[in-house]
Amino acid sequence: MSLESFHAVIPAGGAGTRLWPLSRASRPKFLLDLTGSGRTLLQETWDRLITLVPADHIHVVTGPTHAPLVQQQLPELTGLFVEPSPRDSMPAIGLAAAVIDRRHPGAIVGSFAADQVISDVSAFDAAVREGVAVAATGLVATIGIEPRGPSTAFGYIEAGELLSVADAPSARAVTQFVEKPDELTASHYVRSGSFSWNAGMFVTRSDTLLGHLARLQPHLHAGLDRIAAAWDTPDGPAELQATWPSLTPIAIDHAIAEPVSLEGGVAVVPGVFGWDDLGDFAALHALGGSSADVVWVDGDGLARAEDGTVIAVVGLRDAVVVRTADALLVTTLEHAQMVKDVPAILKRIGRDDLV
Amino acid sequence: MSLESFHAVIPAGGAGTRLWPLSRASRPKFLLDLTGSGRTLLQETWDRLITLVPADHIHVVTGPTHAPLVQQQLPELTGLFVEPSPRDSMPAIGLAAAVIDRRHPGAIVGSFAADQVISDVSAFDAAVREGVAVAATGLVATIGIEPRGPSTAFGYIEAGELLSVADAPSARAVTQFVEKPDELTASHYVRSGSFSWNAGMFVTRSDTLLGHLARLQPHLHAGLDRIAAAWDTPDGPAELQATWPSLTPIAIDHAIAEPVSLEGGVAVVPGVFGWDDLGDFAALHALGGSSADVVWVDGDGLARAEDGTVIAVVGLRDAVVVRTADALLVTTLEHAQMVKDVPAILKRIGRDDLV
Repeated sequence: MSLESFHAVIPAGGAGTRLWPLSRASRPKFLLDLTGSGRTLLQETWDRLITLVPADHIHVVTGPTHAPLVQQQLPELTGLFVEPSPRDSMPAIGLAAAVIDRRHPGAIVGSFAADQVISDVSAFDAAVREGVAVAATGLVATIGIEPRGPSTAFGYIEAGELLSVADAPSARAVTQFVEKPDELTASHYVRSGSFSWNAGMFVTRSDTLLGHLARLQPHLHAGLDRIAAAWDTPDGPAELQATWPSLTPIAIDHAIAEPVSLEGGVAVVPGVFGWDDLGDFAALHALGGSSADVVWVDGDGLARAEDGTVIAVVGLRDAVVVRTADALLVTTLEHAQMVKDVPAILKRIGRDDLV
Repeated sequence: MSLESFHAVIPAGGAGTRLWPLSRASRPKFLLDLTGSGRTLLQETWDRLITLVPADHIHVVTGPTHAPLVQQQLPELTGLFVEPSPRDSMPAIGLAAAVIDRRHPGAIVGSFAADQVISDVSAFDAAVREGVAVAATGLVATIGIEPRGPSTAFGYIEAGELLSVADAPSARAVTQFVEKPDELTASHYVRSGSFSWNAGMFVTRSDTLLGHLARLQPHLHAGLDRIAAAWDTPDGPAELQATWPSLTPIAIDHAIAEPVSLEGGVAVVPGVFGWDDLGDFAALHALGGSSADVVWVDGDGLARAEDGTVIAVVGLRDAVVVRTADALLVTTLEHAQMVKDVPAILKRIGRDDLV
């Protein structure tokens, strides 16, 4: 399968409040080297994609606060889209798709979040190639992650009949997308063998995407079309500023994936690689995120000092200890999801400097 | 009761390893302001005593490492004794007592640890005055702390018959000193009404003390006598260096209090005041030792940042979180006694800089 017409879009948003105090409004998750690889999550996303497409086929959509750091972290990036304000994933991906569609009619667009961790790059490559082959037929393709267990932290994709798409032997029709399930339901899903995790990776022809959008979200489509028409003209910035705030804030799952799947228009290809969205410290711990200088006395868990100081944990199992120069979080793996309350409280008490 | 002949001795030793990382070898517990009063524990000890005696009747015994900081914290102190190496409390107190005895025959000497917290100074005063009255009769007096509960962290003193000492109406004979008991035994003690906590406060005539020492620890007595004889001469420093290492390392409880109590030579006066030796973070927590900038989300305990940063504790009860500029401790109140393992481990792995 040729990837000549393939373009990658990286929506780089989201605060990652459950990773406070590592992740901050001004320095969100995707701009951080959370895995200790020496590259940030955004840079690792770039590294995975640059083996598939040339640099000018990679596009990043981010906010004005983060745009300078994004450009700095990705010096080869030429396709930076700055959204004036966050409107969820559909406007972000739709903007890039609409502009790409005008520049490169018949292009195939894939979206890949900026803050995910993937362990097997060649398996990722294979899945993307199958997705592109599926998208070429006019279907919306998604990459479904083979579940490691009955996680309740992710949405699931149910696969139906095997399709017969050239160069995409493992593609199946999507029966349904389901939101994060409870634990019992998740167990059923995983045992059934026909469910995979929804990693938000979608591959589609740009005209397919825009066609669905025109039908299902006509107001949003019209706005994006106006902005895209002006994008490569001197009126571009003014049109963006004028129209963007009126766009419907909606996720691509709700705008396209779910309704189109009910029409039989979505296919899933299996992603057989280690994957995580590093949603909280329990996820980071699973990847092994402790500092070197930790003294454990009758204790275990995740302990990390960004400022290089020594941490001692005494008599605490499944501890989460994260120290930055200006703040400190102490919790347990079990309470990892509650961490998002901390920046919310700090905001309320006027400590925006720490959020 | 006149306090004219009364001298106070403050043994200022002990590392306070259970209060790591606040307490360090180079900056032990007594040199710290642990209670947030604005004064260190040593300074608070001085403040309590200076209302009873003039500055030149207060003596501090400490090691060479801490002597400069002791003098700096107590600028009015004229009686600084520097012990070349730690030999436990009996040599420390005995050295001061032997020198005081030569300078002021018939003096009464009281020992008060440098790292205790006392909440009611006038009740402390009253107890010391009774102790001095008892000591004037030739008995060894101790101040027994009225127990707040069946603590297993302290030794106990059992009081017997009421004595009839002028100016010491509440003095009783000591039946026995007992080491830290188990919880059941401690409960019996407290319920009986005749036991008090041993705070290591002893008041005795210097000649009484030296007489007991000559009888019970003749080698130690002879050494102290040699040092004291030379103390106020040009040979003082040389004699100290030559003799000190040979002195028996022993606590005053074992050397004097216990054996003399069996002979009927010790009396106890009640100390009816809030008292704590701040032995660990559970004790510090009981006094309320958290920083202002702590966000508790479904959690409680002690959280303290010496560097003024914000701490968030999520989903952890009875937490102990102590952050200094160079280190961090996370544990629980229940494990407070285990904290001493941390400096021991740090030492073993060559991080003496943090001990």
